[in-house]
Amino acid sequence: MNLNKAKLIVQKYGGTSVGSVERIKEVARRIELRKQEVDRIVVVVSAMAGETDRLISLAREMGDTPPLREQDVLLSSGEQVSVALLSMALTERGIKARSFLSFQLPIVTDERHAAAIIKDIRVEGLLHSLQEGEVAVVAGFQGLTPSGSITTLGRGGSDTTAVAFAAALDADYCEIYTDVEGIYTCDPQIHSFARKLKKISYEGMMELAGLGAKVLHNRCVELARKYNVKILVRSSFNNNEGTWVCEEEEDMEGALISGVTYKRGEVKISVLGVPDKPGVASLIFIPLAEMGINVDMIIQNIGRNKAADVTFTVPEEELEKALQAVQQVAAEIGAEGVDCDRNIAKVSIVGGGMRSNPGVASRMFQVLAREGINILMISTSEIKISCIIDVRYTELAVRILHDAFELGGNSV
Amino acid sequence: MNLNKAKLIVQKYGGTSVGSVERIKEVARRIELRKQEVDRIVVVVSAMAGETDRLISLAREMGDTPPLREQDVLLSSGEQVSVALLSMALTERGIKARSFLSFQLPIVTDERHAAAIIKDIRVEGLLHSLQEGEVAVVAGFQGLTPSGSITTLGRGGSDTTAVAFAAALDADYCEIYTDVEGIYTCDPQIHSFARKLKKISYEGMMELAGLGAKVLHNRCVELARKYNVKILVRSSFNNNEGTWVCEEEEDMEGALISGVTYKRGEVKISVLGVPDKPGVASLIFIPLAEMGINVDMIIQNIGRNKAADVTFTVPEEELEKALQAVQQVAAEIGAEGVDCDRNIAKVSIVGGGMRSNPGVASRMFQVLAREGINILMISTSEIKISCIIDVRYTELAVRILHDAFELGGNSV
Repeated sequence: MNLNKAKLIVQKYGGTSVGSVERIKEVARRIELRKQEVDRIVVVVSAMAGETDRLISLAREMGDTPPLREQDVLLSSGEQVSVALLSMALTERGIKARSFLSFQLPIVTDERHAAAIIKDIRVEGLLHSLQEGEVAVVAGFQGLTPSGSITTLGRGGSDTTAVAFAAALDADYCEIYTDVEGIYTCDPQIHSFARKLKKISYEGMMELAGLGAKVLHNRCVELARKYNVKILVRSSFNNNEGTWVCEEEEDMEGALISGVTYKRGEVKISVLGVPDKPGVASLIFIPLAEMGINVDMIIQNIGRNKAADVTFTVPEEELEKALQAVQQVAAEIGAEGVDCDRNIAKVSIVGGGMRSNPGVASRMFQVLAREGINILMISTSEIKISCIIDVRYTELAVRILHDAFELGGNSV
Repeated sequence: MNLNKAKLIVQKYGGTSVGSVERIKEVARRIELRKQEVDRIVVVVSAMAGETDRLISLAREMGDTPPLREQDVLLSSGEQVSVALLSMALTERGIKARSFLSFQLPIVTDERHAAAIIKDIRVEGLLHSLQEGEVAVVAGFQGLTPSGSITTLGRGGSDTTAVAFAAALDADYCEIYTDVEGIYTCDPQIHSFARKLKKISYEGMMELAGLGAKVLHNRCVELARKYNVKILVRSSFNNNEGTWVCEEEEDMEGALISGVTYKRGEVKISVLGVPDKPGVASLIFIPLAEMGINVDMIIQNIGRNKAADVTFTVPEEELEKALQAVQQVAAEIGAEGVDCDRNIAKVSIVGGGMRSNPGVASRMFQVLAREGINILMISTSEIKISCIIDVRYTELAVRILHDAFELGGNSV
């Protein structure tokens, strides 16, 4: 893709990219350079790094459960500050600029405060601004309900704002600036041979994001896939090439798998000796769903005596709530008992190539076994294989899988 | 006036009243108490003390002359934070509350960013909120242009917001909470006998505000007079009675004058030996007006040789600009020269009683003369007499005038 031939692009700068007066000025300088090549630029901005956390802690000081409507009013002020300051910095460089808050477009969402879904984006005002030669500076993360209350899209929502505008404006692509240089084959802090990918498919990126790689908000990738918005993830701290997130192509990496990732902070709960009757599994998971507990992996083994062991993982912070609910159900359905394990981690390999290569899973299990790493649970999707292992072996597992699948080398 | 018989009141809390988490909680407690007596309460809130200054200095770091449209976007975030936090604090106490930003009503202003004038206020949404039993928490200081840009009303604009709502809602009265207990006969820091007034007329208050007593924003008092909104100025730090600002009544104080005030920070410019021809004065003041320089007092003495001395005062920070303009004009019209004096102060006495008492002015001059204080300029209105004196004598002049007009005693 030729970056310079674009007619209209959306850029998104995250919190660290606009984390100080100096950083905001640097972003303005980058936009100025880019404006010489690209005719029309829409910039989506997050709150300055630390600001959202500061505001949340203010809210907490007002009470344990601040009303979400007012929390959204509070948090959205962070992006309001950023768009104003960046517009000022651009004006100071002689670049015409205009800020847009969600109500000024509007960005219409549903009524779910703190986790709103974008329903509609009106771009007339923004197109008028671009027509006037202005850089349109849009507050990320925020929306407006049909009745006029401010909403927020949840953490990382500014990515979603950016992709939504890229889709609505039929932009050539969407650049997401962050404090890492792109998407890596594994966490560079765990393995020095981690390699930056040139491209990754939407699906691959979604699996990675869901598995704990925190570069892109998952909803934003889903939206990008839906509207076929090309995303370029890159750093605002240097000029290195980033990683394209786009539709899978023939030449894409060519590799079997594109990355190894890991996630800690989950716990494993097992309901042992569950009588094997139809509908028994739903009795366990319905109460958890009603409590809003996010169940991740689930496995069921039919064992001796027509009794099953049902095992699943939940976020660590929801363990107590989940255990309470599960113990009650276990008693009701006549299960033998409930067990849990906190010391686990999930290690996964992700890649479109494994679709046509049935040997990938067994190779992964072999590699882990060779180092004596016991696999506690397995879960697979079309382009991902995840294993739950003892948390102590997390880094080791990532490194040996990275090497075994030859992801290293050629680091950019 | 019986505070408790009200059906609908507007309260305004200034920056120091909501200056910290603890102060905001205290304000919520006050509102809760008041809600037991008054059915419907609208609360207008300023930004937390220091926040507006912090934001302004951020803007300055972006460039010397930040675009005012974006500065208004930036500054209005301060009140946004306050209304959200106060609504949270009220909710935490079990009081239903809802925040309103200017765009959510809207508060429609003209297009003058940083100094906008309110043109229209829509209160439907607010009335609906009150009907639901909620305390309506309104962001002060901010407005919205007809085309949807955020404006601000200028420093102290939250007072204006509060009075505008009191007028639009036909409120019983408007309470303005601040960090002083009311309006005093003179600055309590200068004279220990300063006495808090029970009442003062709109006109008296406007003269005081214009003369440097910083308790109430002048535009707010003007608006209150226009719509006959009763204002009660009081402290949010205690429960003492405040000062009513309302229409003049027979029993109002009964005193000749209601206060002595002073103002520093102006400079005196004299254009000497101006040829006395019609229109000459306008030649001097038109360029100053075009530069937006706020000329306060003006005097003209016809002197010897049909030449006049024209003397006026301007804010200290505009001296250089003003001098430059005036020197040019002076040369063009053939004046003898330009002179200026930085070491001046304005001391004024204010009171409705002086209307019917022609001896007040001469008494003021006598009192000053008795202490050897030379009067450099005099300016009078119906209810105010101001003298420009040497800045060294400011406190002395305030004290002796306060005593001479028997303003002390009975301090509340």
